Order: sequence, then structure tokens, then C-alpha cells
Amino acid sequence: MSLIEQNQIGFALSAQSDERISAINPSNGETLPGRFSVATPTEADKALQIAQTAWKTYRNCSGKQKAAFLRAIAESIEAIGDTLIQRAVQESGLPEGRITGERGRTCGQLRLFAQLLDEGSWVEAVIDPAMPQRQPLPRPDIRKMLVAMGPVVVFTASNFPLAFSTAGGDTAAALAAGCPVVVKAHESHPGTNALVAAAILNAARKTGMPEGVFSTLYGRGNDLGKWLVEHPMTKAVAFTGSFRGGKALFDLAAKRPEPIPVFAEMGSVNPIFVLPEIMAAQTTPLAQQLAASVNLGAGQFCTNPGLIICLENEYTPAFETALRSAFAQHPAATMLNKSIYENYSQSSASSIREKGVKALVGEDNNAKPFLARPLLAKVQEKDFLKNPRLQEEIFGPFSLLVLCKSPRGMQKVASILQGQLTASLMGTDKDLRASRPLGELLQEKVGRLIYNIVPTGVEVGHAMQHGGPYPASTDARFTSVGTGAIRRFVRPLAFQNCPQRLLPPELRDSNPLRIWRMVDGLYSKKKVNHA
Amino acid sequence: MSLIEQNQIGFALSAQSDERISAINPSNGETLPGRFSVATPTEADKALQIAQTAWKTYRNCSGKQKAAFLRAIAESIEAIGDTLIQRAVQESGLPEGRITGERGRTCGQLRLFAQLLDEGSWVEAVIDPAMPQRQPLPRPDIRKMLVAMGPVVVFTASNFPLAFSTAGGDTAAALAAGCPVVVKAHESHPGTNALVAAAILNAARKTGMPEGVFSTLYGRGNDLGKWLVEHPMTKAVAFTGSFRGGKALFDLAAKRPEPIPVFAEMGSVNPIFVLPEIMAAQTTPLAQQLAASVNLGAGQFCTNPGLIICLENEYTPAFETALRSAFAQHPAATMLNKSIYENYSQSSASSIREKGVKALVGEDNNAKPFLARPLLAKVQEKDFLKNPRLQEEIFGPFSLLVLCKSPRGMQKVASILQGQLTASLMGTDKDLRASRPLGELLQEKVGRLIYNIVPTGVEVGHAMQHGGPYPASTDARFTSVGTGAIRRFVRPLAFQNCPQRLLPPELRDSNPLRIWRMVDGLYSKKKVNHA
Repeated sequence: MSLIEQNQIGFALSAQSDERISAINPSNGETLPGRFSVATPTEADKALQIAQTAWKTYRNCSGKQKAAFLRAIAESIEAIGDTLIQRAVQESGLPEGRITGERGRTCGQLRLFAQLLDEGSWVEAVIDPAMPQRQPLPRPDIRKMLVAMGPVVVFTASNFPLAFSTAGGDTAAALAAGCPVVVKAHESHPGTNALVAAAILNAARKTGMPEGVFSTLYGRGNDLGKWLVEHPMTKAVAFTGSFRGGKALFDLAAKRPEPIPVFAEMGSVNPIFVLPEIMAAQTTPLAQQLAASVNLGAGQFCTNPGLIICLENEYTPAFETALRSAFAQHPAATMLNKSIYENYSQSSASSIREKGVKALVGEDNNAKPFLARPLLAKVQEKDFLKNPRLQEEIFGPFSLLVLCKSPRGMQKVASILQGQLTASLMGTDKDLRASRPLGELLQEKVGRLIYNIVPTGVEVGHAMQHGGPYPASTDARFTSVGTGAIRRFVRPLAFQNCPQRLLPPELRDSNPLRIWRMVDGLYSKKKVNHA
Repeated sequence: MSLIEQNQIGFALSAQSDERISAINPSNGETLPGRFSVATPTEADKALQIAQTAWKTYRNCSGKQKAAFLRAIAESIEAIGDTLIQRAVQESGLPEGRITGERGRTCGQLRLFAQLLDEGSWVEAVIDPAMPQRQPLPRPDIRKMLVAMGPVVVFTASNFPLAFSTAGGDTAAALAAGCPVVVKAHESHPGTNALVAAAILNAARKTGMPEGVFSTLYGRGNDLGKWLVEHPMTKAVAFTGSFRGGKALFDLAAKRPEPIPVFAEMGSVNPIFVLPEIMAAQTTPLAQQLAASVNLGAGQFCTNPGLIICLENEYTPAFETALRSAFAQHPAATMLNKSIYENYSQSSASSIREKGVKALVGEDNNAKPFLARPLLAKVQEKDFLKNPRLQEEIFGPFSLLVLCKSPRGMQKVASILQGQLTASLMGTDKDLRASRPLGELLQEKVGRLIYNIVPTGVEVGHAMQHGGPYPASTDARFTSVGTGAIRRFVRPLAFQNCPQRLLPPELRDSNPLRIWRMVDGLYSKKKVNHA
């Protein structure tokens, strides 16, 4: 499959500007083939104009039609075969096994949303039938369900070139909801984007979707992002990346004449609380598990554990030694791109210069460009409590061990934490019983509370919550992973006293789609019977 | 019951400042008894500090406990008896029958939320049990449910001194969700607020709720509102009122170090499309129905129909005449307060000076202070399309008839409308069949689409959607009326690999509360069985 270098705007290719971007292979610093056309304001406008037009028909597609589209996307992605895997490996520096697994996840989540649409109950149909005899006033017939909000702009993430990118979770959720998508391609993997975008558009053609249901554009710097977020036809924005990037988009969106929601998943430090009994009993396996989680994918996960909090007692030196030796076993690893590498080098280096922080592994961090060395440091509770900089995320294989004088100290550390995607409690039964107040406190801080597992590895299912209190996400009421992610792009629409034939099938008395509905306050799949 | 003139902060009374406010009876301009203490920054801080402390226990109260609290509030409000009705009548100028009905609605919605809590499924429990054998990786056990976000600040509305005020829908929804509430009392009805707040606190004492679960404060101007919205412990804001007020709070909240959601219901013009066959066939009853809806409660409803759109044909003159005579039958009515009266006088007067607008009823608008005269005007499609000011809400008994040259013209008018709480289609079966594209278009613009009923009268039920695309509301994904309103104040929290005994009852295998849950993608009330 040849590489499309133009912007893909609906079913057309467009290259108005002479400005081009190319990808760099982070493993060797070489420029990869492909000169991708940087989009102009006119091209950005065109993508959203046709998205808006597409929305008018796409939002009325049945669940079956949208499901067929999502499944066709998965098939088209798989049909690219090894070309896609190789390109994503070259553009990300991630190993082939990881990318192959990520393709499986990407197609898996497209198919999971297709299942959700086939089943159909996700629209949350609620029916309060008329009560003409009610006193003092009759009750009118009111029915509501979730409907698509309009065109969605997706900002892709560098750390998952497939699963959080062009056809990733945000795109899958928005398309499932009935919203056309405009993807801003990531500058780190434009080739991967071009291949996947072509696959999506192939699938759109095959399944008869309207032109404009999907477009992708290339940009450099912040211009394109600004045009897309400020475009009056954009109704929501999804973003996965840094706090700075997510916050900038949030601020732009809030200042629009019509403010729109920005779902920015901005990462966090995902603290792990190691409780005393397990620290003494499982010293080495625990240390290895933690070191593996911190170093997975060169630490480039939003759920990477950047803080390990434990008690300082007679078992702590052994735990510290075990962590040091477990960290030392992990080699330096290639990072996704130059700016991520530079950020990691600088922020990890400045972290170990903070007051009271002592490097345990990796103090000598002069690795080769793009290679990140694992870094483990430690600090005392009192210094941690005084220094909010120590809880800022360092994207990469870095973790800070916080040594507390008492269980109360661990509680204090928990109490000053900012909002987090996750927190983990590592403990024996006895530990967990003794630490219930800590667990209670962590519930206030996180989107996902984990027991005796590391936070890396985000399951794509119905129960997943990937999104936590600010600043982990801009909106903790929603998840960016799992089927719940569809809710970000819909709003309830009520019909009052509407004739049956004008109602969407989901709300008709006969329940032709056989979905779960709340009728008069009770859940059922039954038809509505009028007394 | 004597009138408490201090701020009610938890179970304590507080009057740090000498500044006082009093209420004016809009029916006669007289100052009513009661000098209510204006809150200081210290008092505002205190209310939120104790709300935060209360949250830590209140969020863990069972559904039954919270339901008992809500029912006790309803009983305490009813126990105030005629004192409350009389005070609310004096402070609002609304007739006694209306206030008595509103008390019924207020207590009714508290009890409806209590029912929702008793039933318990509103927490949207989702369980994906572990699959240890899954390939290529085992699936961990993940479970999630909705949990309370934290202290909520409620801004009360003048037009519903009970149902959208101190113990109104926002307070009921937030308390039901598990969030303590701090109410900024409305300057128009401080006495009603004092009585209802005391009833809430009585109920809190009786049912053993923590101090700080409810507080109310008095303020003048914007200072108190700003302190409350900017307070770091505030986690969400609910507001019903003007666009200017709602937008100001939204902007304040977006600029906080930790941005928080503002649910502002800012009203709209609620267009009514009168289709041609019904206009000819039902001329007089339709005109009377519309005039009654525009004049209900002196037009002081967020769902008041401010636009009536019809075709200009041989039947239009008769419809216009019928509307004129129906409007003329409605007497001038007392408005809620001086500023609302002045706003109505000015904005209705300037509306009929806009290009092409002609007053049909009420051109001579020099009524007595606080008395609003019904005003009906008309304009041609072409002038309406050119002038966005003509679709701004005029709060009061005002409506603008828009005469269109063709069905396409009606469609054009619909297409330029801003987001609305509601739109209504009045039509025979034949009309509605012929106007499907218009119905489709209106779905994009509104939260509630109504057929052959006027928009005033907002049912408090499960299916109600009260909230529409911006600028009708700041967040169209939520409703401020009905049981769905609880969702504004919660967020999902996931537990991964959590021991059974540490899980909330809603998520335990045994389903001790017998609630509906989604288990492995299927809805049921069953226990979770492990294979």
C-alpha cells in the first residue's frame, strides 16, 4: 500500500500548502519516507464543513449500520498487514510485539463498540408514558434517549500510535456515538496515520457512509489544533497527552462564543502505596513487579507509577535494595520522539536536584539521544509534603520512593495528592484491613482504585474508568477507555407527546430493537402498554 | 415559626457583618419584615469547609439514609404550613394557588429522589468479572459505579421561590447524589429561604446527617457568588437564571486552578412552529392555548414561548386576529422583582423598535411599576433572519410572531435558531408528515421537542430533559429537572481487583441491594457467579 501524503478530507485528497512534515525514526534518528502536507485554514474549515453535513445523515444511521462501519474499519486495518506494523515500529521506536498487540487492541475496541451498537441499549432510553387521569394534572408522554452531539475533533497521542491515535478509542467512541471525526494526525507518526486513515475511508466507502464522516489533517505546532477547536462546527474535543497541551485546548474551548467540552486525559503519577506487611513478606517479587511496571514501554504510559509510597521501618532497606536491583535490570529504552526524550532527561534530572531527593538508580543519566535510562529516587515524607513539584508527572521510566515515618504519614501523603487516573494499594489482607481510611481517602482522588496489581495495562471493557479528578483529566465524569467512552459525545434528547411513527425506533411502544429501557421507572425490554 | 435572619452555616447561625438585606413585596412595593445578614468571606469559607468535612461521611451514607433525609425535608417543609405559603406569596407576587402547587412540586421531587435512592440502580453499577484464563492476557476484575463529587453550590432562581430554590431540584439532586449543598439565597425571597433552610436543617438533625450537609448564605451583588464558585472545595455549581449570570459563573469556574462544571440553565425563546393545516383548522383554540402559555406566571418561565412561527397565507390574518384577542384577555401581572420588571419593560420596548417589528398587542406599555402587560408583536421572515437580536429571550409575557413566505422559510428560521430548551410543533397528522425535515432540524437545536402541547409545564419525571444546546444551558449533556439531574453531581469510580469486603455494597458479588447492574455487558439483578 502506497503512502498517501496529502490531507485526507472526506473521500478527497488535498495538499494546498507546500509545507511538509516528515517522521523521524527514534531508534536511529533517520528521516523516514513520506512528506506529509501541512493543512491550511481552508482545509481545516473544509473538513469540518463536510463533517457537519455528514452528521445530518450519519447521526440517523442505525446501530447496525454504524456497527458494520466499525467492523469494516477493523478489517481494513488488519488488511494493511505488515506494512502498518513496520511503519508504526519505525515511527515510534516501540518493539514489533508491542505494536502487533496494539493493533489487536485497536481492532478489538472497534469491534467492542460494534457489539455495543448491535445490542443497542447504550442509548439509555427512558419512557414515561402519558397518564391522562393523573391528579391534579395529567402527565404528558415523555421519552428520551442519547443522541449524537456533532463533529468531534480528535487529537492523537504519540505513545499509542494505533490504540490512542487515528482509529483509536476516541475515534471509535465518537463514530459509534454517531459523530463524524476530524483527526489531527500526530507529528511523530504521520505515516501510520496515513495508512490507518485510508483504511477508515475505505471502510466508509464500502459501507456507504456519507462523505465527511472522517477526515485527517497534518499540522506543525499549535495552529491546526487552534483552528479545529475554535471552528464553530466542532462540538467536542478528545485529547490524550500532556497537561500543558490538554489545558491549552480546554482554555481555547471555554473561550469560544459557544463553549464546547474538551475531554483531555492528561496523565498522572499513579501512586502505589506499599503497605508494611506485604513489603516485608513479598520484598523481591513486589520490587520486580513495580520496576517492570515503571519500565514498561520506556515508562511512556499515562498509568505509569511515578510514586511509590511506603513505611520506613526495619524492612525498608531490603525493599530499597530490591527495587534498586530490579530497576538496574531494565536497560535504557528508546523513547517516542526527541521532545519526549528531552523532557524526560530534563525533568528527571531536575527532580533529583530537589531538596531531600536522592537518586538510587540512574544518577548518571548520560545515555545516547532518544535512549531513556530508568531512574529511581527517594525522598522523605517531610520533604515530599513540602514540595508540590515532586508530584508532577515525569513521562518516562522514573519513579520516586517516598519514605513515611508512620501510617499517618502515608495518609498525609495521600491527602495532598492531586487528582489521579489511578492509585494502587499493595497489601496483605491484614494490611488492607488496617488501611481502610487510606483506601477511603484514595477514592476521593482517583478514577480507578487498584488492589495488588500495577496500574499499567488498561482493560478495554464496560467497567473501565480511565479519567480521574483534575488535573488527571479535564472531566472526571467521563472515561476515555472502554464502552463508557461513547457517553462523551452524546446528549439526551426528549420527545414530548410525539406520534409513534415520528419517534426513533428506540423509543417506540413496540420496542422493535428489543433494547433495555426504563419505562415508568422500571428497567425492561417489554413493549409499552397503554392502560 | 420565627424568621431566622442570620446565615445558617451547618447547625449554627452566623451574622458577622452588619450589612443586611430585606425583601420587597412586588405587589405593593413595601419592605417585608426580616433583615437578613449579608455573608462575609469568612462565613462563605466556613460553609464550604464544613461541607467538605460533611462530604467525607455523607458520601458514604446508604441510599436508605439519604432517602430518609430527603423525605424528612419534605415533611419539615410541609410542617411550616401557611407561614411559608404567605411569605412566598409576599416575596414573589405569585398567587397563593401557584405557590401551594409549587410546594407540592418541591416536596414531590424530594420524594421522587428518595424513591430513586431506595431503588438504588441509579448508581449505574457495571461489573466485568475476572477472566483468569483469557488469552493472550487474563482479564482483571473491574467494577465501577457513580460516586458523589463533593460540595455543590446552588444559585437559586427568583421565578420558582420553592421548586428552583433552597430545597428545589438542584438541592434535591445534589443531596441525593451524596453531595453537601451550600445555597446562595435569592435576594428576592430571603424570608422564604430562611424558612426552608431551617426545615432542611431540622430534617438533617432528625435523621442524623453530618453538620455541614447544608448551609445557606445571603449576599448582595456578585461578591458572595464569586467567593463560592472560586472556593477550592466547591466541586460543582448549579444555576438557573439569566444568560449573563450563568455565563459569568461558567467563566469564573473555567478559570479556577481546578476548573469545575457549572450547570447553568439560562433559558431560551422556546419557538413554537404552527403548521398550516392546524392554523386554519384550530385557529381560535390554538391562539388561546398559545396566549395562555405566554402569559402563565406573567411569562416568567424558562420555557415561555417567545417565538411563534407560522406561514403567511390566506388563513394568517384570522390567526393573527385570534392571537390579538387572546392576548388582550390577559391582564397585566405582577412581576417577581424590580429588576425583572425593568428588564422586561426595556427589552420588550426595544424589541418592537427593531426593524420590521410591529406591535400587535401591548404597544402602550406604561403599566404601573412591577406590572407587566402582555405584548405580542410580529415580523416578517426576512427581517427576522437578518436580526439575531430578535431571538434573544425577553423574560416576561412577550411573544414575537414570525410570518414566513413558505415552508422553506420556516425551515430557514429554524436553521438559524440558537440552542433552545424546547421547540414545539403544532400540527395535524398531515402537517407533521409534511414537516419531517423541520422536525429533524429542530432535534439538533433543542433538549426537548414537543408535539401539540405548549412548552410551559415541565414534568418532573425520569424522562424529562430540561437543558438544551448552548446558550440554553452551559452543558446540554445534563438535565436540571427530573431524576436524571442527579447525574450532574457524580462521577464514575472503578475498583480493580478489590476484595469483596472492601467494595461498596452496590458492587459486591451478592448484590445485597438487589439493584440492576451491567454484568459482563448484560443487565440483571443477579448475583455474580464465578466460573
